[in-house]
Amino acid sequence: MRKGKLIVFEGNDGSGKTTQLFKVEKYLKDKGYKVLTTREPGGTEVGYRIRKLLLDPQYKMDGLTEALLLAADRNEHVKNVLIPALDEGYIVLCDRYILSSIVYQGIVRGVGVENILRLNSIFEDKIKPDLYIVLTLEPEIAIQRIQMAGKNNRLDLEDLEFHRRVYSGFKEVSKWFERCVNIEAQGSEKEVFEKVCREIEGLFESKEKW
Amino acid sequence: MRKGKLIVFEGNDGSGKTTQLFKVEKYLKDKGYKVLTTREPGGTEVGYRIRKLLLDPQYKMDGLTEALLLAADRNEHVKNVLIPALDEGYIVLCDRYILSSIVYQGIVRGVGVENILRLNSIFEDKIKPDLYIVLTLEPEIAIQRIQMAGKNNRLDLEDLEFHRRVYSGFKEVSKWFERCVNIEAQGSEKEVFEKVCREIEGLFESKEKW
Repeated sequence: MRKGKLIVFEGNDGSGKTTQLFKVEKYLKDKGYKVLTTREPGGTEVGYRIRKLLLDPQYKMDGLTEALLLAADRNEHVKNVLIPALDEGYIVLCDRYILSSIVYQGIVRGVGVENILRLNSIFEDKIKPDLYIVLTLEPEIAIQRIQMAGKNNRLDLEDLEFHRRVYSGFKEVSKWFERCVNIEAQGSEKEVFEKVCREIEGLFESKEKW
Repeated sequence: MRKGKLIVFEGNDGSGKTTQLFKVEKYLKDKGYKVLTTREPGGTEVGYRIRKLLLDPQYKMDGLTEALLLAADRNEHVKNVLIPALDEGYIVLCDRYILSSIVYQGIVRGVGVENILRLNSIFEDKIKPDLYIVLTLEPEIAIQRIQMAGKNNRLDLEDLEFHRRVYSGFKEVSKWFERCVNIEAQGSEKEVFEKVCREIEGLFESKEKW
């Protein structure tokens, strides 16, 4: 039993998961908790190199290659960041984890959910998130948000179909995991934050003391 | 059934496997065969980036991370190099493949043989080498060769112990695979090549025509 808690934020692009993660960080720090925020891929030095390779537009790589690179990144992250921080009693807020691999590589890129689960079972044995918060936002609205943030100015039908599959993927996969809650994020930042907060408070109340 | 043949060269550093691979390449080309030589890691563009990361001395990474990066490299290599070449009828000579992962990461780095086999089972399903040639040379002699080639001027006890484990690892793992022959490489280049050639000739004779 590790002293800290691991809270994972997952969801489709444009759902506001990173914004909510930082709001939770501030909220918990204001309450006096030791909080560490991190992300996958890229939360370690080796991971940063892997992230750069994954995001380099000059390479068109196979979905399974992506899944293996993400697992390599995850192994460094679990060993060098997550486990040490949890052992020291930190509340760790992690932007993306295994659910993203299942949705993006397993479902959307067609590697197969079973293959991704098998590949990631080694991490599940070492560490289990105390809470998964999966924020989903309907793809039509999510895309508008992404475009307004200037992250992507190009949009074609393939993009919309991709976003739809990611969205429905997260909604479906959320049902498979314990300690996993799916929050629809169509409200204001404040409204969504209230829902997120309720889940976090629930997590803390569920154990008398930790 | 693919039209070509895959011959994999494995073995400890200093055993002369790469030298023998190129001698076989010349031998087969002189006989009129279409031959492709390739290597792992690094036989593709993505693989080259992965190879650079793996060999970068500034990173000390976990054995499982190495195994996952090597599997990512292998996936690109199998899909983009090995399968297309075999389908076109090439004799493919590949410098290192799954046995190296078993020995270096599975045994020497302690990831576990079972984990490496599970991780690599997806490749075994797609493609099986027609012949593994595993060249082994006693570590004391192999190290002298490496030093004479100017590849490594530093030698301490840890290095010798490492080379011993790699050597005995290859000898042991050779017994587990079908179509796998272990050749002790203590003779001259020419003597070793004669032994290698006999195995290659045997492979070609075993099928009437291909």
